[in-house]
Order: sequence, then C-alpha cells, then structure tokens
Amino acid sequence: MDKLRVAVLGATGMAGQWFASLLEDHPYFELVALGASKRSAGKKYFEAVHWIIPRPFPQKFADYVVFDAADPDTLKEEVDLIFSALPSEVAGEIELKYLKRGINVVSNASPFRLEPDVPLMNPEVNWEHLQLLKHQERWGAKLVKNPNCTTAVMTMPLRPIMDEFGIDEITVTTMQAISGAGFAGLNAYAIVDNLLPYIAKEEYKVKVESMKILGKYKEGRIEEVKFGVEATTTRVPVLDGHTEVLYIKTKKSVDVDVVKDVLKSFKSRPQELSLPTAPENPLVVREENDRPQPRLDRMAGNGMSVTVGRVEVTELGRIRMVIVGHNLLRGASGVSLLTAELMYKEGYI
Amino acid sequence: MDKLRVAVLGATGMAGQWFASLLEDHPYFELVALGASKRSAGKKYFEAVHWIIPRPFPQKFADYVVFDAADPDTLKEEVDLIFSALPSEVAGEIELKYLKRGINVVSNASPFRLEPDVPLMNPEVNWEHLQLLKHQERWGAKLVKNPNCTTAVMTMPLRPIMDEFGIDEITVTTMQAISGAGFAGLNAYAIVDNLLPYIAKEEYKVKVESMKILGKYKEGRIEEVKFGVEATTTRVPVLDGHTEVLYIKTKKSVDVDVVKDVLKSFKSRPQELSLPTAPENPLVVREENDRPQPRLDRMAGNGMSVTVGRVEVTELGRIRMVIVGHNLLRGASGVSLLTAELMYKEGYI
Amino acid sequence: MDKLRVAVLGATGMAGQWFASLLEDHPYFELVALGASKRSAGKKYFEAVHWIIPRPFPQKFADYVVFDAADPDTLKEEVDLIFSALPSEVAGEIELKYLKRGINVVSNASPFRLEPDVPLMNPEVNWEHLQLLKHQERWGAKLVKNPNCTTAVMTMPLRPIMDEFGIDEITVTTMQAISGAGFAGLNAYAIVDNLLPYIAKEEYKVKVESMKILGKYKEGRIEEVKFGVEATTTRVPVLDGHTEVLYIKTKKSVDVDVVKDVLKSFKSRPQELSLPTAPENPLVVREENDRPQPRLDRMAGNGMSVTVGRVEVTELGRIRMVIVGHNLLRGASGVSLLTAELMYKEGYI
Amino acid sequence: MDKLRVAVLGATGMAGQWFASLLEDHPYFELVALGASKRSAGKKYFEAVHWIIPRPFPQKFADYVVFDAADPDTLKEEVDLIFSALPSEVAGEIELKYLKRGINVVSNASPFRLEPDVPLMNPEVNWEHLQLLKHQERWGAKLVKNPNCTTAVMTMPLRPIMDEFGIDEITVTTMQAISGAGFAGLNAYAIVDNLLPYIAKEEYKVKVESMKILGKYKEGRIEEVKFGVEATTTRVPVLDGHTEVLYIKTKKSVDVDVVKDVLKSFKSRPQELSLPTAPENPLVVREENDRPQPRLDRMAGNGMSVTVGRVEVTELGRIRMVIVGHNLLRGASGVSLLTAELMYKEGYI
Repeated sequence: MDKLRVAVLGATGMAGQWFASLLEDHPYFELVALGASKRSAGKKYFEAVHWIIPRPFPQKFADYVVFDAADPDTLKEEVDLIFSALPSEVAGEIELKYLKRGINVVSNASPFRLEPDVPLMNPEVNWEHLQLLKHQERWGAKLVKNPNCTTAVMTMPLRPIMDEFGIDEITVTTMQAISGAGFAGLNAYAIVDNLLPYIAKEEYKVKVESMKILGKYKEGRIEEVKFGVEATTTRVPVLDGHTEVLYIKTKKSVDVDVVKDVLKSFKSRPQELSLPTAPENPLVVREENDRPQPRLDRMAGNGMSVTVGRVEVTELGRIRMVIVGHNLLRGASGVSLLTAELMYKEGYI
Repeated sequence: MDKLRVAVLGATGMAGQWFASLLEDHPYFELVALGASKRSAGKKYFEAVHWIIPRPFPQKFADYVVFDAADPDTLKEEVDLIFSALPSEVAGEIELKYLKRGINVVSNASPFRLEPDVPLMNPEVNWEHLQLLKHQERWGAKLVKNPNCTTAVMTMPLRPIMDEFGIDEITVTTMQAISGAGFAGLNAYAIVDNLLPYIAKEEYKVKVESMKILGKYKEGRIEEVKFGVEATTTRVPVLDGHTEVLYIKTKKSVDVDVVKDVLKSFKSRPQELSLPTAPENPLVVREENDRPQPRLDRMAGNGMSVTVGRVEVTELGRIRMVIVGHNLLRGASGVSLLTAELMYKEGYI
Repeated sequence: MDKLRVAVLGATGMAGQWFASLLEDHPYFELVALGASKRSAGKKYFEAVHWIIPRPFPQKFADYVVFDAADPDTLKEEVDLIFSALPSEVAGEIELKYLKRGINVVSNASPFRLEPDVPLMNPEVNWEHLQLLKHQERWGAKLVKNPNCTTAVMTMPLRPIMDEFGIDEITVTTMQAISGAGFAGLNAYAIVDNLLPYIAKEEYKVKVESMKILGKYKEGRIEEVKFGVEATTTRVPVLDGHTEVLYIKTKKSVDVDVVKDVLKSFKSRPQELSLPTAPENPLVVREENDRPQPRLDRMAGNGMSVTVGRVEVTELGRIRMVIVGHNLLRGASGVSLLTAELMYKEGYI
Repeated sequence: MDKLRVAVLGATGMAGQWFASLLEDHPYFELVALGASKRSAGKKYFEAVHWIIPRPFPQKFADYVVFDAADPDTLKEEVDLIFSALPSEVAGEIELKYLKRGINVVSNASPFRLEPDVPLMNPEVNWEHLQLLKHQERWGAKLVKNPNCTTAVMTMPLRPIMDEFGIDEITVTTMQAISGAGFAGLNAYAIVDNLLPYIAKEEYKVKVESMKILGKYKEGRIEEVKFGVEATTTRVPVLDGHTEVLYIKTKKSVDVDVVKDVLKSFKSRPQELSLPTAPENPLVVREENDRPQPRLDRMAGNGMSVTVGRVEVTELGRIRMVIVGHNLLRGASGVSLLTAELMYKEGYI
C-alpha cells in the first residue's frame, strides 16, 4: 500500500517538531513538506527551526525548504493530508484554505473544535466519532480536530469510568507543564521557584471539550454527555507532562479494586487495529504512592499512555486519582497522528 | 514588663533558623539559649548551623554555645518557655523532659497534637482554645502545639467561611514547597523538572487537625467540628510557600461577592491585641487571575498572611479558591511565636 | 536641603521596578513621574506594571499616570534628573531628547557608554571619573552611564587588586541570572534543567567597559587601562545574582592572605560620604568553601556589595576567586542610584 | 563467542541503574547478578531499587535477588567480571575482596585510581594504557579504574589537542549536574534558584587524573604528562550533563579552523574496533553560538560523545571551548562499559 503524502503546518514550533520527529519513518505517511510562518518561509528546515524537543533532529528533513503555511500556493508538493500545529489565533483561517483546495486537515488548534460536524478526536476515547465525517460536507475535504492537551489526557481514564459507573461530577486540579504554553509562551523569570494559578481559557475548554469527546455518536451527530465540572488549571516548573488530580462522582457506587481493574483492562479500537502510534496500554496503573511523576512517567507508551496512580475512593464516595500524560504527545502531535492512522486504517482518507 | 526568657530546640533546622531570626529583637521574648542535636552540641551557633533561610544570620546569637536539646541538663540558662522545632520522631519524648522540669513548651512537632487537653493553636482561627490550658494538669508546665503547615494555612480562610456559611465538605489539592520537607528532606534529583504526587501522612493530618482547630471550646474540652474531607497533597519545585486549591461545600448557599467580603474583613484576637507577629490582614484577597503565586505572595504580612485568589462559586455551588501561605512562617515558626505572644498577652505564661 | 525631583524611564521593566522601590523613600530624591512605552502610557502605574521583583509594590506610586517615555512632552512634571532603564535599542535616541531639554540623565542602557566625554560609573571603582562632566558640553545637561551588570560586579574586586598588584590578564567565566535578560528575555522551556553557554554581546562589553572603568581620569579624559581579557558568559537557572569565576594575572607577585586583606579593607568615596545606597562593605570576603552562592549572597549590602569567596593563588601564580553580585542592584538600578547620590553630594547636580 | 558473565556492585545507585540499563541486551556481557548494600540484600531488584534514571526499568532483571556487595560469599553466580559503582568510601576494601577471588573488576570508584599499575581508562584517550595489565600482578585478577566524571569529559578534547599542539596550561571552570553528587548527594533546597561554587575534592582530581590519563605508556608504566592546571568546579541546577569552560595554552601556536578540524576528525581505537558502546563521533563540534547545552547535548552519541562549542582562539592565544558530556555515561557507567568492551576485544579478559 502506498504511503500517503503529508505536510505539517507550524513545523518550527514544539508540536511541529514532534510531528517531524514522529514522521521521520512512519509506515503510513510520507512527510513531504514543512510549512511555517512567513519569517521561516524559504529557509531550509534546519536553518528555520530552533530544535528543542528531547529527540534527535530528523536529518532526513534538514534540507526541506519551508513553505509559507499561510499561503497554500507556496506548497509545491502534492499532499493528501495536512497536520496542523498552527497557533490558534491564525489556524482557523489558514486551515480553511487547505480544505478548500481539497486537502484533508488533522489539526491540533482550537478553532472549529466545537462545530457539530467536526470530530474532536482522542481515538481510544471516541473512535466512533469519525463517522461524523460522512456527514461533513461543507468543504471539499475533511477536517478533524484534537482536543486541548489537558482534556486529551483527562478523558482517557474518564472513558472506562463513565462506561462502567456513569459520571455525575468531576473536580480536577491540574499542574501543567511549561511546554503547554509553547516555546515562547512563558518567561523563565515567571516560573522558577514558583507556580502560576491560572491558564487562560483552559478551564472552560476542559469542560466543553470533555462533554463532546465523551458524547455518543448517533445518526450523524454527537450527543454530548452532561456532568458537572469544576476545574482549576495551574502551571508548574516542569518541562513536559501534565499532572491532573481528579475526583469523580459516579452514578453507581464504586469499589476501588474494581476501579483499578476497569482502568487496567481498558483497550480500544487503536489497540485492536494495532495502529503504529497506539500504546499497548492506554492506561498504566501504578500502585506506588509516589507515582505518577511527570518526569518519570510522561514517556510511558512512547508518550501516548496516561499513567494513573493514587487511586482511592474518598470518604465522600468519589474516585480520586492522580494522572500524568505527555501534553505534546497524547495531548497534541501524538494524538493527531493516531487520529490520522485511524482515519487511514478505517478508510476515511 | 520584663521579657520572658526563651530557648529554641532544633535551632539548626530551617524552622529553628526562622525562630532565631524572628527572636533577634522581640518585644516580649529574650532568646537566651539554642538547643540542637548531640552532633551540634558544644559548638557555637554560627559553627553548628548551615544558615540557609532568606534572612541575614542573627549575629547576636553567633557565639551562643549550642546545648544538647535531648538533655535538659545541658541547658544552663533559666528559661520560661521553650519553642520546639524538633523532628517529630524525637519531639514527644524530649518535650516531656522540659515539661517535667516546669518549662512551658510551644511546639511545632506532631506528637500530642490530638491529645484532648493540648491546644492545637492557629491564633486567628481558634484563640479561645488556649482556655484548655486551665484544665491541662498532667505536667508541671504547659504544652501547646501548632498544626502542620498545610493545615495552618488552610484553616485561615476556612474560619470565616465556616462561621458565616457552615461547611459540609472540602476538597483540597496542595502544591507544597520543598522546605516543608526540611532542609535534608528531599533530594534535588527528585524534584527538578518534576513534582511528587504524595507526601507521607499529610492527607490524614490535614483532616484530623482541621477538625480540631475549627472546633469549639466548651467546658474544658474541644468539640470537634465534622465535615467531609478529600485531600491530595503534592510536592512541587518551589522553595517556600504552600499553594492549596480549595473547594468548599457550605451549608448555606453562597454569593461570590459576599464570600470575598467575608474573607477580606476577617480579623481576630491577634489583630485586636496588636500582637507583634500578627499580620494586619490575616487574609489578603487578590482579584487578579494570576494570583496568588508562592514566590510573590509567600511573604505577605511578613509571611503570616494567607493570600487568597481565584475566588469563585462553581457550577456545583461550591466555593473555589487558590491560597498561598508561608509554610515556615504561618505554617511553623511564625504561628508558634504568635501563639506564644497570645499566651503572654492573655496571661497564660 | 530640598530633594531633587526625578523621573524613571522604563518604569515597568525589572530595573524600573527596582528604581521605583529604591526611590519610595529616598533622602535626596523625590520620584515624581514614571515613564514607559506607549502601550503603558496613560495607565496608572499599578495597572501598567506587572510587579515581579521580590519587594513590596510601592503603593505611594500606584496612582501615578505613566507618561510616554519616548515623548518628553507627555512628562508634565518638572524634573531635575532622569533615571533611564530603557531597552538599549531605543535608549540612545530617547535619552538625547531629555538632555536637549536640559534634564540630566543617569542611564543603565548601553548607548554612549564608550563615548570619551561620558563617565561610565561604578562609584566605588571610579568616582573620580565624574570630573569628565566638567568637560561634557555637547548637550544642555549631563549624561552619565552605568556599565553592564557583569562588568559592574567584576570591576569591584578588580579595583583594589589593580591598585595593589597591577593587572596583566584576566580570565572570567560567568554564570548569569535569568533577570539579566529582562523579564521577557528568556523562555522558561530554554532554561529549566539546562544552561546556555552564550550571552549575546556580553563578552565584548565585559572587555571594553572594564578597560574604561578601571582607567584613570587625567586632564578631561579617561586613560584606559590595558590588560588581556578572556571572557565566557553563560546563563544559568538562577533568578537574580550573577556568579563570576575570575582568574587574575597580576603584575606583582601575590600572597593569598594579602589579597584577602586588600579585598576586605576596600572602601571608597561612597563609603566616606556615607551615601544612602553605599554598602558598608563594598566587598564581603567569605572564607567558607561553599560561598558565595547567588541565592544566599545576592542581597549582601542590600544588593550593593559583591561577595568574594574561594580566594586562592593558583599554581600558575594567578589569583582565583568566585564572586557574586546582584545584577539588578549593583549591576543596574542600584549603581545608577549610587551614582546619582555621588553626583548630588559632589555638587554635579 | 560466549558472552562473559558479569555482575554490578552498587546496583541500586544511579550509576548502577545505568549499568543495568546498558547491560539489558549487550553483545559481549551477560548480567547475572546485582549487588548492593546490606539494606537491599535479599530483596528482589525491583523492590530494592528506586528507579530514577530516564530509561525504562529493565524488566529482565526485576526478579534478581540482590546480593550483599560487601560480602562476596553472597554472590552465588559465577562471574568473570565485576562492574563497580560503589561509593568511594567503601569501594577500595570491597573491590579487593573480589580481586582476591580471581574476579576482574572495572570500577568507577576513586580508590586506586592513581596506583602505578592500575590503568585509569578513558578508552578513546588512552587505550594503550591497558597494557599496564600485563604488569599488574599483585592480585589474582585485574583491576581497571575509570576517572571521575569531570575528567572523563575533559580529557576527550584534550587528547587530540595535546597530540597536535602540545599543552602547557589549562584553566577549566565547570558547571556540574546534580546527578554527579549521587541521588541523595544534594538537597533540593540547596540548589533551586542557586548554584554552589565548590565540589569537594573535585579540583584536585581533575588535575591528577588528567595527568595520568593523558600520559604515555612506556615499558610497563605510565609517564605522566605535565602541564599547569587551574580548576574551579561548581554545581548547577541541571539534572544530567556536565558543562566545562576550557582554556588551553598550547605549546605550538594554533589556528581556530585547524583546531576545529582536529577535534572533528578525532577517532580512536574504540571506533576502529566498532565497540558496541563507542560513539561514532567521540567529539561533536557545534558551530552555533548557543551550543552545547547540557539538556540538549548530553545524550549525543548515546551519552558517550562530548559536544564541543564556542571554539575560539583568545586574544591571549589560548584555545577556548565549552564542552558538555554526560556525567553518568561518558563520565561513569558508559566509560566503564566501553573499557570492558575494549578489554574483551583486545583479549585482556
């Protein structure tokens, strides 16, 4: 089977660098072009990028001449699919340009995430949502979105919990990594010996995106799920890996051992299909009191597993757990790639 | 009025260093002796201590010869009061030795905190509890305890909230500072680019100590208050200052502006008495989304105020707030000193 | 004696915040106006500034309406002196505007530092250089510059060493604090668990500015001193306080105890005049192997002393020392203020 | 060819963990036993170890029962070679016990490093020194040592520089990683927002070990090289990877481009023999001003390359470079393993 030809928009940013790294040698996709801002356009990728992620620079793409992501005319290669890691402020308009030219887009940026005909994908959690694409007809090509990083990580354990016990309410406090703000998104002086008690727009996103992702596909639309959400999102001096302290009030009563079993045994469509980026265990359950830790657990399942620890049933009858997931892999580039793999294998592209 | 003569046990540790600094020039107390472990005993203080807190070394005490805290015979000075910053593992036994010699003890260590006849003091929160001392007769002198740092910080806003609205349940997630573990309590390699999701015994302490502190003094005993507690305590790469994300389910329904007013206007006995260590505002309420931050707010009120921010009423009707307090001042040495000041002014010592 | 009326340019930046803090209650100067970029102009200071330095916000200036530093017409107050903490890219042009209106400028920005008629002041090191002002006639008012932070710290111990032993060569390796790059000058992701081996232009500045500062005033000009310089400047994850490892090849042979005595006994004109910002000991010499440390020593002498440790004579006969100084106090706002105090006391303004 | 059977002493420490990871699947060596302190002895490895290095735990060894490293009788497996990562305080005595039983020892601990008949190996630098083993007869087996981490990294570029230009003097300032102190070697409170200007014994070791390693093997002994050394060693808040700023005064005059060529083209015996742990490029020369950085460059060549940047000839005619090498790989476990591979391939074991 021939590989699909793909390009990355926002290729010099951190999510873009992860895309380039993950696509260096992929069984389904051939990365043929790298787009970035006008400032980078025309330069070779190795000159344009300030390589910063903890993976070796992909020499294979070093001499690719970066095209101007905002102007599809500068993309000289034929491509079947675009991975977008554009900043949210500009992503909406630019992604439309590619759709109108008949190029499918899998995007990590926030615009369109809540549109009824756009699947908001976290494959293990809502693989059936891809069926929305059969009804998505307003552009000449398909648009698929990924959730924000915090929600991508959080919905992983919520899926089996909801299926087994139902969910009435959740209370979540996050300790998010620096890289979640983008390479230039946070000043060093602000965060050393410190933490920030607020991340703009994040608490709202956690709520509304979760509702959609955990909803049910039915006759061409997503029936959103409803539960109460309390979210407090903070930034801590950790490079990569979001930590989330999660309390879940379930509809049915719970037993802590059953909860752990439900989490441990969770597998989904990506595992059935053995997708290249799918982790063997979507959820890694740790019994040690001092786990998960972001530095030690963020790369579980090559950054695609979510590690769960400190699972308890509180005196108020809620499930408590602490989870860690890689915000740029499970939370961004990895989940986009896994989504594209699912689309490919299921015949959507 | 003559100053009382006081000594510090555990004077080389971080809480001990704060005691020395705070007592360098105190209107009620004259620091006349410094005790520490056998290893330090016999050395001059400036030789025995590895001075590390962000305050100048108190030259006044440089030449004090450290006595062996575990052996009261080595304390050659007459003292009226001991401040104990001993490690919890040894504190119980040692403090008893001083009590039996008729020396009052105000202690930051955990043993005896839950004994019915021992006041567990956070002065703004439960100044009436000192009355327990009238009934504390088993030793020849008085023993008063301070709560653990997390609880000391948390009970500050809980007091006026409880008084005004009643409390049914709280859910608290903490991000605690490195210094809470003591100077040698945490390895550097463990915490850089990382956080730890667990602090031993802390979650239990938060629950039981809060119940006692917020309880009511009545006829020689404390009637503990009862409410549900969910607590998750974590360690983050911050030097000083505990951050706590707090959700409170109140008995009465709440309005966010009223909540803020109640917090802002909170004053208590230490403020009435103008105790030297009492902050003008026990609670500093910030309106900015990005406050409190531990590095910027830990020294509010000379480290004795608790800064409160992000006050909201959630969609589940609970009060949400993020608070920061200095774990070694409001949470340890400062609260001990304030307690002793209250005892002095109220005639208990 | 009436206080002089002063304004600060660049008042919202970190050096500007230190100026505001230091001028909250100054015996010679009355801060009457705060200027910043167009974006801040028209706002009240408390709204315009993102207060981040480890000092309380000066409430006294909270309601000052910020003027547009680039446009002197927007400065409505009469002022005798401007403290400039402007970014170097714009400082030259803007400072000239004030000079042409007859307002004296003491500036921390780099333009004009090497002009022959402009004193480059680090008062303890080269207080006689102020005499240049008698010959500075091209503007209607006086312009005085301060060196870059690294040089300000380094020239402090070099002064008595040079006077006593002469200097042939120096080799310096710096570990500079984050705040040296300005609040927005360094991304958090770049520096956590890392260091940067390079700071743009810094190595050149260290060389040329040292030569001028350590030079001799003679008949209306500065005779620069000449010695060999090797400098490597790096950035480390420290908030404030530059550390410098310094090797000095002297003209005369040295004895380590004499070197320490020379450093310890160093006093200069600011100490003689008891200037308000002058530290009692310009150089604090520590004997402990593990000192100086930036976090523990940066505030020595209220941030105006340089702490010197690990003083040795190497097997190659060079003096080796490790020094720490506060880059925003001795290295920026503090040294500007000390310079202005010297000018005031010596009758230059 | 059958694999040699090996054991690791000090298997629960950080260097020990790296040994276990590197030996999980090695072409020459079969790891058959793991020894540690009495406290760990008798436990399974997965229970005894607090796994902390950034590599997955080697499941293969999870159920190995840890033996008491100090008591060779508890080692029940036959082994040909011991890798010792014991603490220096106890290493000397313990290693002798194994030697006396006829088991070869390759050790990372400091005792015996300077003994005339013990090779102090950094294979690319001094592979011929293994010939000393032909004359090492005092024990029933062979003892080989590796240098301290700082010296292992530094001697890599010094080798080709010395061969090409000769060396008269070096001046080195190091910024060493936290892991160099061992997992429990440094308190977190000491290093956050700080650096330490001193590492005990390190400056002496750098000097004497370099002289031996760079010496020449001649008729059964090493002729030490002589050059002047000035060293200042500091600790910075970096997890892994030592940075060293190096000035070299050569005997012959140098040209910067020739220096770079000499560094880039450096290959040695391990590369010729294609030893499994030998990096393709022992020295990676970077042209960017902002490299090397420890976080980005420590894993070059799987942690076995040393990255060199900022190469210049100073105005004093000395070569200046900044180098980064992984202190636990090139500086400890990796260099021990490479040494053993060389011994194996050259027929010494």
